[in-house]
Amino acid sequence: MEALEMLAENISVVFVEPETPGNIGFLARAMKNFGLRTLILINPCELEDEAYYQAMHARDIVEGALIYRDLHEMIDSLEPDFLVGTTGVPGGSYNVDRIPLRPSQLADAIRPSSGTFILFGREGDGLSNEEIGLCDMVVSVPTSEEYPIMNITHAAAIIFYELFRDREFRCEGLEEASAMEKSLLLEEMDEILSLIDIPEHKQRVASRVFRNITGRAFITAREAHTLKGVLRRIKNRMKG
Amino acid sequence: MEALEMLAENISVVFVEPETPGNIGFLARAMKNFGLRTLILINPCELEDEAYYQAMHARDIVEGALIYRDLHEMIDSLEPDFLVGTTGVPGGSYNVDRIPLRPSQLADAIRPSSGTFILFGREGDGLSNEEIGLCDMVVSVPTSEEYPIMNITHAAAIIFYELFRDREFRCEGLEEASAMEKSLLLEEMDEILSLIDIPEHKQRVASRVFRNITGRAFITAREAHTLKGVLRRIKNRMKG
Repeated sequence: MEALEMLAENISVVFVEPETPGNIGFLARAMKNFGLRTLILINPCELEDEAYYQAMHARDIVEGALIYRDLHEMIDSLEPDFLVGTTGVPGGSYNVDRIPLRPSQLADAIRPSSGTFILFGREGDGLSNEEIGLCDMVVSVPTSEEYPIMNITHAAAIIFYELFRDREFRCEGLEEASAMEKSLLLEEMDEILSLIDIPEHKQRVASRVFRNITGRAFITAREAHTLKGVLRRIKNRMKG
Repeated sequence: MEALEMLAENISVVFVEPETPGNIGFLARAMKNFGLRTLILINPCELEDEAYYQAMHARDIVEGALIYRDLHEMIDSLEPDFLVGTTGVPGGSYNVDRIPLRPSQLADAIRPSSGTFILFGREGDGLSNEEIGLCDMVVSVPTSEEYPIMNITHAAAIIFYELFRDREFRCEGLEEASAMEKSLLLEEMDEILSLIDIPEHKQRVASRVFRNITGRAFITAREAHTLKGVLRRIKNRMKG
């Protein structure tokens, strides 16, 4: 978890010439959903109410946004370790051809301790070839060929999700049953199977089916407890 | 790639009581970005211009959306093989607790050949406990604890992305049990439960646990056949 916090601390999100205030808000909200805090706006549109409205509880990120007139001024001032460009047109007509990374590859490549700046381009035209040329890496979300142009903040949410995909779930009381609990279940089931009149090889098949299903079903500790009680009673009734 | 096309064909996206037309459009666009086509709206707000505007080139998906008055009517009419609920609050206060899957786990679990319906809830309140109770599985995007509530269409885009990330499907010759086959299994189980000596409310809990597990475990037709035979013999032995 410490690595994820360091990562969140060291990533800056750069929105280059945003055209609609609402998208600045949507972007800020997606950032905060994944623990990101630093937003940089390059020559943005007016920050109208809509930006704060769509940000919801990420209003603080919009309010604290750093604003620069152009990308060069930002780079000179903040000296990023890595610039990551995003594009919806993989393999387009960039001067320097490069293979865009998938979001998962970006996640593997990023170092939590480096100052990484992720650039999102204008809603209409994306990043220019010159801007892409400044970047150390380019990332693209794999999409349907029929309609590859994503909403910019949807693409951002997917990239943020990938960067923080190893985050733990907080789901108290919903722990998966342990291997021990599951094996106790299977023992009960095997006993039950031994009480019914089927050939041994069919018993083995049935036992295996139970084992496979139990393995696949993400059974919680509480569910395993319920099941074990029921199986015990079935067994007793069959013996009785 | 054929498996991905089959997957896209067999997934339906259900938006339950959407409150703002813009979000219907954003959702349709995200669907089309990943090759999804079937949108179902349950008791939606008026489909104003904003819905079509935000859909951009996915206007056809909004125009072709199926509309139902409530979820039960939709289920009766379309008979989904799998209902997947989405929630931003993992480990809530559901009657029968279950572990929410991560989007990547959902992607691993889904069968391209089954009719899978993914439910997204109201922008403000999400899905109700009753609606979640109807689902075979629940999926949740892991987020920052500080601000876990995502924009609904951002969460949808992340889930769609995971479903169609480039991967091989391992599914040859392993058809999933049909809804009918599974419901026969559950009937056998309920009969068995009625034969053991436990209070009625515990019987109901146990029945629900079996239903949830069966829903989650992607039981093949062959496995269902084995299980049904075994359950029938258990029942007979208990009666005997």
